[in-house]
Amino acid sequence: MKRADVLMEALPYIQKFHGKTIVVKLGGHAMIDPDILDTVIQDTVLLHYVGLRVVLVHGGGPEITDKMKAMGKEPKFVAGLRITDNDTLEIAQMVLVGKIRGKIVSLIAKFGGKGVGLAGQDGNLMFAKKTGLKRIFVGDKEEEVDLGYVGDIEEINPELLIGLLDRGYIPVVSPIAIDRKGNGLNVNADTAAGDIAIALNAYKFVNLSDIDGVMNAQRTRTYHRLTVDEANRLIDEGVIVGGMIPKLEACLKCLANGVEHAHILNGNKDHTLLLELFTDEGIGTMIHKGET
Amino acid sequence: MKRADVLMEALPYIQKFHGKTIVVKLGGHAMIDPDILDTVIQDTVLLHYVGLRVVLVHGGGPEITDKMKAMGKEPKFVAGLRITDNDTLEIAQMVLVGKIRGKIVSLIAKFGGKGVGLAGQDGNLMFAKKTGLKRIFVGDKEEEVDLGYVGDIEEINPELLIGLLDRGYIPVVSPIAIDRKGNGLNVNADTAAGDIAIALNAYKFVNLSDIDGVMNAQRTRTYHRLTVDEANRLIDEGVIVGGMIPKLEACLKCLANGVEHAHILNGNKDHTLLLELFTDEGIGTMIHKGET
Amino acid sequence: MKRADVLMEALPYIQKFHGKTIVVKLGGHAMIDPDILDTVIQDTVLLHYVGLRVVLVHGGGPEITDKMKAMGKEPKFVAGLRITDNDTLEIAQMVLVGKIRGKIVSLIAKFGGKGVGLAGQDGNLMFAKKTGLKRIFVGDKEEEVDLGYVGDIEEINPELLIGLLDRGYIPVVSPIAIDRKGNGLNVNADTAAGDIAIALNAYKFVNLSDIDGVMNAQRTRTYHRLTVDEANRLIDEGVIVGGMIPKLEACLKCLANGVEHAHILNGNKDHTLLLELFTDEGIGTMIHKGET
Amino acid sequence: MKRADVLMEALPYIQKFHGKTIVVKLGGHAMIDPDILDTVIQDTVLLHYVGLRVVLVHGGGPEITDKMKAMGKEPKFVAGLRITDNDTLEIAQMVLVGKIRGKIVSLIAKFGGKGVGLAGQDGNLMFAKKTGLKRIFVGDKEEEVDLGYVGDIEEINPELLIGLLDRGYIPVVSPIAIDRKGNGLNVNADTAAGDIAIALNAYKFVNLSDIDGVMNAQRTRTYHRLTVDEANRLIDEGVIVGGMIPKLEACLKCLANGVEHAHILNGNKDHTLLLELFTDEGIGTMIHKGET
Amino acid sequence: MKRADVLMEALPYIQKFHGKTIVVKLGGHAMIDPDILDTVIQDTVLLHYVGLRVVLVHGGGPEITDKMKAMGKEPKFVAGLRITDNDTLEIAQMVLVGKIRGKIVSLIAKFGGKGVGLAGQDGNLMFAKKTGLKRIFVGDKEEEVDLGYVGDIEEINPELLIGLLDRGYIPVVSPIAIDRKGNGLNVNADTAAGDIAIALNAYKFVNLSDIDGVMNAQRTRTYHRLTVDEANRLIDEGVIVGGMIPKLEACLKCLANGVEHAHILNGNKDHTLLLELFTDEGIGTMIHKGET
Amino acid sequence: MKRADVLMEALPYIQKFHGKTIVVKLGGHAMIDPDILDTVIQDTVLLHYVGLRVVLVHGGGPEITDKMKAMGKEPKFVAGLRITDNDTLEIAQMVLVGKIRGKIVSLIAKFGGKGVGLAGQDGNLMFAKKTGLKRIFVGDKEEEVDLGYVGDIEEINPELLIGLLDRGYIPVVSPIAIDRKGNGLNVNADTAAGDIAIALNAYKFVNLSDIDGVMNAQRTRTYHRLTVDEANRLIDEGVIVGGMIPKLEACLKCLANGVEHAHILNGNKDHTLLLELFTDEGIGTMIHKGET
Repeated sequence: MKRADVLMEALPYIQKFHGKTIVVKLGGHAMIDPDILDTVIQDTVLLHYVGLRVVLVHGGGPEITDKMKAMGKEPKFVAGLRITDNDTLEIAQMVLVGKIRGKIVSLIAKFGGKGVGLAGQDGNLMFAKKTGLKRIFVGDKEEEVDLGYVGDIEEINPELLIGLLDRGYIPVVSPIAIDRKGNGLNVNADTAAGDIAIALNAYKFVNLSDIDGVMNAQRTRTYHRLTVDEANRLIDEGVIVGGMIPKLEACLKCLANGVEHAHILNGNKDHTLLLELFTDEGIGTMIHKGET
Repeated sequence: MKRADVLMEALPYIQKFHGKTIVVKLGGHAMIDPDILDTVIQDTVLLHYVGLRVVLVHGGGPEITDKMKAMGKEPKFVAGLRITDNDTLEIAQMVLVGKIRGKIVSLIAKFGGKGVGLAGQDGNLMFAKKTGLKRIFVGDKEEEVDLGYVGDIEEINPELLIGLLDRGYIPVVSPIAIDRKGNGLNVNADTAAGDIAIALNAYKFVNLSDIDGVMNAQRTRTYHRLTVDEANRLIDEGVIVGGMIPKLEACLKCLANGVEHAHILNGNKDHTLLLELFTDEGIGTMIHKGET
Repeated sequence: MKRADVLMEALPYIQKFHGKTIVVKLGGHAMIDPDILDTVIQDTVLLHYVGLRVVLVHGGGPEITDKMKAMGKEPKFVAGLRITDNDTLEIAQMVLVGKIRGKIVSLIAKFGGKGVGLAGQDGNLMFAKKTGLKRIFVGDKEEEVDLGYVGDIEEINPELLIGLLDRGYIPVVSPIAIDRKGNGLNVNADTAAGDIAIALNAYKFVNLSDIDGVMNAQRTRTYHRLTVDEANRLIDEGVIVGGMIPKLEACLKCLANGVEHAHILNGNKDHTLLLELFTDEGIGTMIHKGET
Repeated sequence: MKRADVLMEALPYIQKFHGKTIVVKLGGHAMIDPDILDTVIQDTVLLHYVGLRVVLVHGGGPEITDKMKAMGKEPKFVAGLRITDNDTLEIAQMVLVGKIRGKIVSLIAKFGGKGVGLAGQDGNLMFAKKTGLKRIFVGDKEEEVDLGYVGDIEEINPELLIGLLDRGYIPVVSPIAIDRKGNGLNVNADTAAGDIAIALNAYKFVNLSDIDGVMNAQRTRTYHRLTVDEANRLIDEGVIVGGMIPKLEACLKCLANGVEHAHILNGNKDHTLLLELFTDEGIGTMIHKGET
Repeated sequence: MKRADVLMEALPYIQKFHGKTIVVKLGGHAMIDPDILDTVIQDTVLLHYVGLRVVLVHGGGPEITDKMKAMGKEPKFVAGLRITDNDTLEIAQMVLVGKIRGKIVSLIAKFGGKGVGLAGQDGNLMFAKKTGLKRIFVGDKEEEVDLGYVGDIEEINPELLIGLLDRGYIPVVSPIAIDRKGNGLNVNADTAAGDIAIALNAYKFVNLSDIDGVMNAQRTRTYHRLTVDEANRLIDEGVIVGGMIPKLEACLKCLANGVEHAHILNGNKDHTLLLELFTDEGIGTMIHKGET
Repeated sequence: MKRADVLMEALPYIQKFHGKTIVVKLGGHAMIDPDILDTVIQDTVLLHYVGLRVVLVHGGGPEITDKMKAMGKEPKFVAGLRITDNDTLEIAQMVLVGKIRGKIVSLIAKFGGKGVGLAGQDGNLMFAKKTGLKRIFVGDKEEEVDLGYVGDIEEINPELLIGLLDRGYIPVVSPIAIDRKGNGLNVNADTAAGDIAIALNAYKFVNLSDIDGVMNAQRTRTYHRLTVDEANRLIDEGVIVGGMIPKLEACLKCLANGVEHAHILNGNKDHTLLLELFTDEGIGTMIHKGET
């Protein structure tokens, strides 16, 4: 395929997306592999320059665990759920905000964009309340477990994001919210990204992680286009199982609240963001409202 | 070369050109071959969508001659210069404004942009005064020849262009000016395009015609990058000759008046505009101020 | 009547019309008689300067026919309706856009205003679809006739007009629309003007042609003020007949869609526009919603 | 002369004055004769509606004297100059601001405009300092006389005026200034009007009083157009004498400080403002910079 | 209490009131005692500088009566109501607009703000219609009495106020309205202030007079906080009587029309405005919608 | 002193500072003592609400050292200068950005403001280049020491700060810059704050640390007001010595580059910011350009 043809193939997409808002959740290996992150940020900056309004929301679980260990602090899990005590919260904030996010924003600068890092307290962006006790089977006894400084998002104030987007910045949001007294709370990055997409009335929500898209239980098939109805049926019929379900449900929540398209992509492959958005065949899974 | 790589190669150019103004003179076969024109206009619309402010200025000599003949009016030339009498002017305006420009603007619409056609009287865009008598050798006698309703541009008022660019339109300008009494005058399209580039303080001026770029007299060499000094030296040393000289001088005038780069491209080849602007090697000739 | 009294008489009208939009259809002899056109454009520029937002829509039937004959092309009519084949369309566009409209915009410049010429493709101003086959009695046989490249207006996008009016320009619109593929179609100028008035939510629509106003069948009476109800009754009762009916119905359509007043005036008389708008007695016919 | 011709004659003036600022000093009988004031305010509102930015500055000497007498307070003069004691200042303010200006603003409303009354303290419009002692011949002895609460203008802050003009109001200014402590001081209305014209960089300054224009000593000749040089020569040669001189010098000060034209008109004649501004021959005296 | 603590106590109120509109009716001794007025205006200017949008409405009854007597005009009352004949209206306007208001605006300047004086005719701020005949017992006979040039407010046009507030001015309004013909009418200052507060959708309405707040009939108790329901009950139960009732009802009207809080304060005490607004305990009466 | 008097004393300062920009460097115990920080942030929010445009720049040396030790990393110093290796830089960023700054922004939210945290990479705010080798006496040998990832500020881009201030946010800046490749570099917080004050053309620069102001060598005298000349003389004459000198020189640099006033205050005392800015006597040292 010739160079100019690639640009020509992209033209109708560039037109359609012009001035639209896209929220991209960055997760998985992109958070720890500098080459992958480089590629993802290049794509992001290109999206910005061809006219989209881009917001990044990043995760960072693995690196928090690494840093805790480096500081001699043993991560605590109950039935697979992390318990976030005071020290854990502090380390999480330092890693997410002070390390990962700074790196992302610096890369945006390196590739010619202007990023601005934000967390929940900035401009009162995200308020959360402490997640209540969870009933969990620990061994074979059900117990009420306090997950600690973890929150459920209550309110998104998108004014600061909108103001920054209007002036040509690329906001990069860390999954830290505050409660009404100004205390920090960890929040789930997928949920935060989805809620921000809804609050911004975004055109697209993209979840960039380590899987190629929505797959069936046997991993023998990847779905490239799914309607909301189809996605729900696949869940109901047990075709889609396990960790895929919450990712897909986060997408469905966006679509039920005004977002036009949701995408699940593998950030580890080269330039999946561009290939998904600007080529006819796409590369991951796109979920949308209409008929296939 | 892979798709995403093409987009990635384009990224630094897209960044650099963002929000900059480019004036493109459309001439040559593009004016009569619909396939070529299609390609050029696609390129133009893409330039617009990746953030440039694009102004087109079109020519149309051959089609005027055709239409005159169709109307039983014999074009008159003295020593190779067209004499523009009243009928010729009327036909020229009808062809340029009523036919060619309408087609260009319609194509912009077809490919997803919003064009607006303009001539000198629109918003007092271009004032000219009638070109004085020319001393020309007719045979071996020098005579003073009146070229008729042909004008030299005196004043460009770019407010209307700026207002339209600010609101996202692609202006398409025909080479018709008015004198101070409101009468139409034909003007040279290359000159009009260059003067508009200067009046807009454009970043780039592109002359898209039927030649591959600046070439030496023997047509054995095409120059891809030329500084102003080099270009002047090539003219002085007689390396560049003939019809190439006025084209090059129009570029040099732009560069002497604030325009950063001037390009001479062959519109007949596929997507030369994109390839010249968005790839590292380019495809035509770029003249610029600095050292090679 | 003394000078100052004339201005004083105009004051309450000037106040009432301040910042309001008026769409004027220019037709009839004004299109071919330069003295009449001069006067009409002077009036137009004055309207602009005393604070109205003026849009002109021009016709041009007779001159198209002249030019066709000059080009050796015989106009074809079936039962009085013009058949617009490809050549006819091209000539119509060249005459309307390249000749008549240029002259109007140049005159606006001459009298101190700033005009901008537009047709359907400019800023996607007017979309039309090809008029279907018409059942017409040709002789005494009813036939289905294809009128050719003639269109019915489907959509008006007034953004470009509004943007130009906001910046102090006087738009001049030619009755050429485009279909969804960007092909030109002739449209009826009266209809185009009325639809533009509706799309702009204009205060006044003025049809300036060669008749003094709405008259009865015997031409013994001219109506100076008519309510919508009265106008409908005059049509129903057969008092108004013939070519007067479509003109009046175009006015009634405007009034049914938000325009406040519609006027039918004779452009051949000196300064009818000013006299109708700025004097107590008026000079043509004004149709309005309320009671006489 | 026909109605439309009057409007046509006005057109070039309306164009030339469009968006320009005009400061009109209202004095003389207009302040006490309601019919004259009506006419002047009608003219003022028309000026506003045809696109000028109008500021009125009013005087009111005679009515102050009347009201003082009605309040049993004898006006005091030394050698013809009014002595403004505390009571006189209070009465002057009540008459100028509380009575005359309110009437003017109400008339503007009546004729369809929106006036706003202002004095020196409003928005810190005019600061003055108390006029120093004057050496005056009282009888045949020269004495130093304290004129009381009378001030010389030190500073005009036109922001409030500009803000109101931008929003379509007609400011009406009373000749009361404040000193730096906030105390009121009477100022000369002609001087105040001229200084406001200068501070606004006005296009025109008009002094509307009871004389037909600049006349020679014998009152046998009225000058319709005067250049600055001519005016100075007439003063130097003693052709112009008496009370005419300060009026003319106020005009010359304006012209020396950026105002384009200054006019001296008789407000007692019908619509002199309109006739002077919008007709070719004018009716009073216009002083300007250039050659006659 | 330490300095910084005072500012800290004020902080939450300053935050809450930021950008909100407050309308203050100035009456009572503040109108005649320069020391009280000084203090009130200092408070007003501080309110402006800490971010409130302040409008003052002043009264002036006592001084009108004084000035009438000084002019040898006996004030006329029927059953305690002032009869406003033509002379009385003129004197009232001169005193209110020409004297009191000028003093207030000058004081604003002195304390560092920028005031602008307004009455009903300015920018068509307040229209009223003449109050109808009143049935009053004169002695023991009921008669219809014409109160003269007194009006009931019909319409408030807040555009001018809003425009001035937007640009940082403090408007000072005199209780003079105009009828539809431009004639002045006296209006009640309390009513005017309340209606302006409603038209501006103000956050607070403050009535600053000579009483400490809402008191019971025996003047043994002052109410610091009252809900609308409580206030109505106190009136119904006869706890509040006499002149207190109309003042309270003006407040209740504001609260019923969108104003959040209404205050009744004693302007004669030092800085009551600040103490009421910026301290926890307050100093006068605040009436509000909610529960105590 | 009575409450209202405190507010009244503050009024002229509030007026003078209205709309002006103030940059406050937060250092010393405020960074580690939550009560002090609470008070400082309360003051900051009050400054914002009374109309100043406030930017905070925070330090954090002691806490970085603590955290390094907690992570088992021994801080390295050569001749008293910290060597910033890769790990140290990472920890510094995590502490400054991820911990301290988040706490400050959360406190701003708690006290009713809207903060936004920023570092050098956000919006390309601060570029630095690596500090060159320093010649230092290590013991009695002079050596060239590489301080590691420490930078000298080269460029401040204040657009992001200005955009946030315009929309009512309080920016909180961490002393981390980036080099041209996007790598982080520690910068001195005092220098960063001063350079930001200069780039913003701030009215005031405040250095809030643990000393009461500028003192003589014997600490027997604190200077409350110093002109630039006096300050220079005190340095030249050896009256001021030691660590006081760089703090003072940072202030003098600001004053030499357009900042009006520089203050050195003790943040450990209650509300020094308010007392210095809003009371007549002040509490720390103010350095200014003019005569004492």
